[in-house]
Amino acid sequence: MKEVTEIKQYHRISETIINIARRLHQKNMLAAADGNISCRVNENEILITPSGISKAFMTPEEMALISLDNQTIQGEPSSEKIMHLTVYRQNPLAKAVVHAHPPTAIAWSVARPDLKYLPSHAVSETILACGDIPFVPYARPGTQAMGDNLKQFLPHCRALILSRRGALSWGETLEEAWMGMERIEHSSEILWKAHALGGLTFLPDEEIAELRALRQRIGNRLL
Amino acid sequence: MKEVTEIKQYHRISETIINIARRLHQKNMLAAADGNISCRVNENEILITPSGISKAFMTPEEMALISLDNQTIQGEPSSEKIMHLTVYRQNPLAKAVVHAHPPTAIAWSVARPDLKYLPSHAVSETILACGDIPFVPYARPGTQAMGDNLKQFLPHCRALILSRRGALSWGETLEEAWMGMERIEHSSEILWKAHALGGLTFLPDEEIAELRALRQRIGNRLL
Amino acid sequence: MKEVTEIKQYHRISETIINIARRLHQKNMLAAADGNISCRVNENEILITPSGISKAFMTPEEMALISLDNQTIQGEPSSEKIMHLTVYRQNPLAKAVVHAHPPTAIAWSVARPDLKYLPSHAVSETILACGDIPFVPYARPGTQAMGDNLKQFLPHCRALILSRRGALSWGETLEEAWMGMERIEHSSEILWKAHALGGLTFLPDEEIAELRALRQRIGNRLL
Amino acid sequence: MKEVTEIKQYHRISETIINIARRLHQKNMLAAADGNISCRVNENEILITPSGISKAFMTPEEMALISLDNQTIQGEPSSEKIMHLTVYRQNPLAKAVVHAHPPTAIAWSVARPDLKYLPSHAVSETILACGDIPFVPYARPGTQAMGDNLKQFLPHCRALILSRRGALSWGETLEEAWMGMERIEHSSEILWKAHALGGLTFLPDEEIAELRALRQRIGNRLL
Repeated sequence: MKEVTEIKQYHRISETIINIARRLHQKNMLAAADGNISCRVNENEILITPSGISKAFMTPEEMALISLDNQTIQGEPSSEKIMHLTVYRQNPLAKAVVHAHPPTAIAWSVARPDLKYLPSHAVSETILACGDIPFVPYARPGTQAMGDNLKQFLPHCRALILSRRGALSWGETLEEAWMGMERIEHSSEILWKAHALGGLTFLPDEEIAELRALRQRIGNRLL
Repeated sequence: MKEVTEIKQYHRISETIINIARRLHQKNMLAAADGNISCRVNENEILITPSGISKAFMTPEEMALISLDNQTIQGEPSSEKIMHLTVYRQNPLAKAVVHAHPPTAIAWSVARPDLKYLPSHAVSETILACGDIPFVPYARPGTQAMGDNLKQFLPHCRALILSRRGALSWGETLEEAWMGMERIEHSSEILWKAHALGGLTFLPDEEIAELRALRQRIGNRLL
Repeated sequence: MKEVTEIKQYHRISETIINIARRLHQKNMLAAADGNISCRVNENEILITPSGISKAFMTPEEMALISLDNQTIQGEPSSEKIMHLTVYRQNPLAKAVVHAHPPTAIAWSVARPDLKYLPSHAVSETILACGDIPFVPYARPGTQAMGDNLKQFLPHCRALILSRRGALSWGETLEEAWMGMERIEHSSEILWKAHALGGLTFLPDEEIAELRALRQRIGNRLL
Repeated sequence: MKEVTEIKQYHRISETIINIARRLHQKNMLAAADGNISCRVNENEILITPSGISKAFMTPEEMALISLDNQTIQGEPSSEKIMHLTVYRQNPLAKAVVHAHPPTAIAWSVARPDLKYLPSHAVSETILACGDIPFVPYARPGTQAMGDNLKQFLPHCRALILSRRGALSWGETLEEAWMGMERIEHSSEILWKAHALGGLTFLPDEEIAELRALRQRIGNRLL
């Protein structure tokens, strides 16, 4: 009885999560049963998408609920829950986490394993609205190692590419986390298309420094 | 009279099939009258999309019904029905088959006829959620030879690229078969984009072995 | 008074035309006020989209009506009406014409002005469902020359790329003409992606001959 | 009290603006909180999208209102308002401005900083429907310098690429401004794809001259 009540009270948040999954699916960032989205609904509880089904076409009743110390309260939580919990534990500000599979961002990590960051200093928007987007070193999906690799980039980075796997973004709202994922793929696409057109050129160093200073005044929030 | 009754009782399954056709069309995997989707509705009967019309914009009444021994019960079944029947006959578990034309997957088969499998060991998700995606040697659409070429890859492969033609995926549900088609094109796109960025690099052999072992524990189900 | 009556009686056909324009817009084949769609509603009258506005977001009331001898009966017909009329005059079977701007098909005509046909003998579907797709030599939009250049490819070709401009498809129904446009861009994309992956390879000559023979038995209808 | 009244009376225009934002988002030209759209509602007042939120998923109530001399009447206007005001001040005809981030247009500005204009004389449509699309030299977003850089291209250009940042289009209606943005990205894509296929080739000089003469007769309006 209690379980049903738990999920039902978060019905509207569940609908927002599914809505965001649908947007990500339409933009080709979620294939098949890929990806997972979570939202911290109170001090101790996290609403998270289930494993094994399409997040764009699921129902609110299929959502799962876990605690911050990794106990399943209801449903079948995503196998990537450790990664989500790592974000919430490391960042008291984090209220939402999106993990998706943006194809161009992943392609960058496959083709250029030498890079530490997406080479986004070619365009002003990525610097201003997001800051550096790191390539988090690969670790096997669902493992503690994946969470550990993430830690060094938290809390200053809210939009990260998970090498050979996907991307992760988090925010103080579901909207912010979603916007981070859009930024990652949109920036990756601009740079990918520029590469195919003959190669990247970059903003002057002084301008990059000015934009970074502006970003610092904006703070870590994703726009 | 009987005929009308036959199809009418499968109205909801027909709607699901058309819904999936619409998703595939939106993702550019079904052009014009391309592709066909079927679902085994009982021991002996298979609901299958008709030939010559757009599957994304058809109505449930236009669906066809055939028997496992290739008799037309109602409607005008797809000219690719032999390929569908081959899957159902070889795999008692098969309840749904999707054949579509994912452009990037086809492009791989056109540009790299030397490959036996999509080079997906560059990313973890394809290995874990799908396993190896083979290139089935070309045979003329609608022929028995096409069915025969498929056989060697069944039953362990549920997601296959049909060289120079399209792709085929099957599952224990329509949802699973659909997810397989999404996986094929999404994986093909990541790898295609990485190629254009300078070339593919791969996961370490030990990691590939570990992921394959994980996949074996998951089984053949498409995720 | 009469004029209003004319267009009103074709309200449903107008809605189908706009619906098709919306599909083409979603697939990136109609930008801004690009493209035009027409349908022969009787022996002498042709319903055609107007000039200067977006066809995906227009209303049925904005449709125009012209006669086969190029008289405007109602509305502001597309400036490309001569091209449409050429198709109807040359092909008694033609009941619908779609002119759109599929970007990949146009790109082929810009990059490879040496080609007479899209090199589609790399995949079976294009041969079977459409036959050869010619590059019609460039002529200025809206001119009689454009109509004249088309003539040599009519009536056997129903799907044609208009070099440096767009593409044209026609059929015995609006659905068929729409399917031809989808085929042109989908085939162009597969071949474009294969080129970028390392280059095109083709089906064996005997197989191409067999597929062409099959196509001949199907006839000129676009699938 | 007054404030609420101000915005409420422009409810329908706000809805059109959000509708256009949604179209641009679907076409991948607005990621996250990117872009801004404005409409001059009377001699002195400009309705403009707010800063920091997604324009495709906002509500009419969140719209902002500013005066031509840059006073905020209501809401939180976009940080790019100076750029919008520059357009309205320089062009009495301007009634709507769209600023978006079309990825292929931006890629051209990143890969080819040597170009003054998009090399669109490869296709007839861009010349006829839009005229030359200049690359406006980079200036920091939100600054007066950005407005100043724009000035030299106004009033004859209504569709412009803002180097390393995005694009701007303006028109006598919201529809026209939207069509300009579609034209910029669609043209950029055709040319980008042709480049990747082996390289651009161009229309003969005489034909370009003829098309430009035709364009001059059409005027500056975007089609």
